[in-house]
Amino acid sequence: MMMNNTMQFETRPVGTLPVEDTVGQIMWTDPVLLPPRFRVNEAIERLRQVGLPHPAMNHCYVVEEDGALLGQVSLRDLLLTRGGARVEAVMAHPFVTLQPGDDQELAAQLMQEYDLLELPVVDAENRLVGVVTADDAMAVLQEEATEDMERMAAMAPSEQPYLESRSFRIFLDRIPWLLLLMLSATFTGGIIAHFEDALAAQVALTAFIPMLMDTGGNCGSQSSVTVIRGLSLGQVQFSDWLRVVWKEIQVSALCAGALACVNFVRLLAMSRVGMGIAATVSVTLALTVITSDLIGCALPIAAKRLGFDPAVMASPLITTVVDATSLLTYFWLASWMLGI
Amino acid sequence: MMMNNTMQFETRPVGTLPVEDTVGQIMWTDPVLLPPRFRVNEAIERLRQVGLPHPAMNHCYVVEEDGALLGQVSLRDLLLTRGGARVEAVMAHPFVTLQPGDDQELAAQLMQEYDLLELPVVDAENRLVGVVTADDAMAVLQEEATEDMERMAAMAPSEQPYLESRSFRIFLDRIPWLLLLMLSATFTGGIIAHFEDALAAQVALTAFIPMLMDTGGNCGSQSSVTVIRGLSLGQVQFSDWLRVVWKEIQVSALCAGALACVNFVRLLAMSRVGMGIAATVSVTLALTVITSDLIGCALPIAAKRLGFDPAVMASPLITTVVDATSLLTYFWLASWMLGI
Repeated sequence: MMMNNTMQFETRPVGTLPVEDTVGQIMWTDPVLLPPRFRVNEAIERLRQVGLPHPAMNHCYVVEEDGALLGQVSLRDLLLTRGGARVEAVMAHPFVTLQPGDDQELAAQLMQEYDLLELPVVDAENRLVGVVTADDAMAVLQEEATEDMERMAAMAPSEQPYLESRSFRIFLDRIPWLLLLMLSATFTGGIIAHFEDALAAQVALTAFIPMLMDTGGNCGSQSSVTVIRGLSLGQVQFSDWLRVVWKEIQVSALCAGALACVNFVRLLAMSRVGMGIAATVSVTLALTVITSDLIGCALPIAAKRLGFDPAVMASPLITTVVDATSLLTYFWLASWMLGI
Repeated sequence: MMMNNTMQFETRPVGTLPVEDTVGQIMWTDPVLLPPRFRVNEAIERLRQVGLPHPAMNHCYVVEEDGALLGQVSLRDLLLTRGGARVEAVMAHPFVTLQPGDDQELAAQLMQEYDLLELPVVDAENRLVGVVTADDAMAVLQEEATEDMERMAAMAPSEQPYLESRSFRIFLDRIPWLLLLMLSATFTGGIIAHFEDALAAQVALTAFIPMLMDTGGNCGSQSSVTVIRGLSLGQVQFSDWLRVVWKEIQVSALCAGALACVNFVRLLAMSRVGMGIAATVSVTLALTVITSDLIGCALPIAAKRLGFDPAVMASPLITTVVDATSLLTYFWLASWMLGI
């Protein structure tokens, strides 16, 4: 036998300093190691000596003398196999392994995809450097979902549970985005100011600005949240961008048609505005819905491509872009259709 | 011995039809059962005969003849204990159990809180009816987070991954909320129409409407998403409502002060509006920030209390309420401060 009972697991340096949210940060570096020619009896004996380091860990790992990962043996296998068998005959070949620099979210995704509760982490030379367990992956899923939601709502991700955070800390997480978005809304205000004369001539147009802006914002956040979540669940990849755009074109055309028709009928039936304004508002609405939808799906995909967190591109930022485009459309259409 | 090797696990009726998202829907009903006076050797022998039904299941359950749950024995315990011991001496008493009617999210929360990968499910008489494993709880976490995000973005929760859903199906998930929110934005439009004369006299006021509405919407979605996520992670309970409101009063006062000051200085320095309009806009902004924050945190808590999903109360619905209140504040303040 090349290895003996005193073989120790050595935690290998990952090469770089730990990076935020990598597998290297949540992996356990002390799994139970077995040489391939150990018998099941000997493996159980070693387990009785060293114990399993972590309650969520239910495998031992079979490695060569240089640490190269050969396979994994579950407690179940040890328990259900007759003691004389060699572990190399019992072990499974891990078909999914992680690297220390991989994203923690990838660990959780792979566990779900392959129904595994434990994944080995290997370095570039296939040497075992750690093990990720399902309890930690679950915590990662929760944290990542919370972070995504916070980013979607234009907040810096929080570090503590809400009720335990100090108010000033929460304020600091929220105020930068609020300031940025407030200042960028100035741009929208500038558009309105630019068309001040047109508005003064047709004050009735002003009453529809909130409806147009809100509907645009809602469509944009619907498509952006759909795409952001798809990206973070691994259901949508950057390479799918053409399929996403094509799907959003179809969906937004359906939404645009339905909303514009309802709006047109409602305006004619219930309010005192004329056919011209009703048509202008409804056409603007349809165009706003389509552009908002497309902006909403395009920005997160672009962010992903550029290496940013797609969730940063969610509703509030999209709202600002959408507000500006819908107002410009509105005023241009109004000056063209109503001649103001 | 009161029990023998042929004891079979009987899946007990839960009493009612399966309810959406309950533990009863994701539990395994075929765990390996052991009588308390079995020895570890006998338990291993039984395991070799029947096998473990599910790879993520790493415990056997010790039950009385009537099915009452006494304890659980992990594979680890079986493997590391000498064969002569009785399982009742080795077993752990499960300190966390679920009921079939419990929310699936609770299962995931408890697993995380107590670092467990498996939870027994018992009926009202403490009889074991099933077992929830961590892989299924992870899937629940992902689904619930996705559903929350979709509801926050005013969509009906999707049933299929995005790229596999038909466009018409996606349209149907999105259009009801879009229609509802479009029609409720009419209310906002009505407020503007009501103040048409004031606006005609001071068209400059119009340019600040988007900034006020957007900032209010952003503040509302920040506080609502924080509270919704806290509720769904179990970090915030209904009984905490007073603490939440008090915290949001502090946070929103800080945000309101900072935003109003920046806005006031910016208006005076960079635009052509006078002191009166700058003051009106800034005071409105401060009041909008505070009311939006409070509406944003109050609605999800109220929804939780009334038994609705808090996520339904997220940004778009809050936007509509916030838009209306911020516009009313704006026009009332304007007529009072500017005398129009």
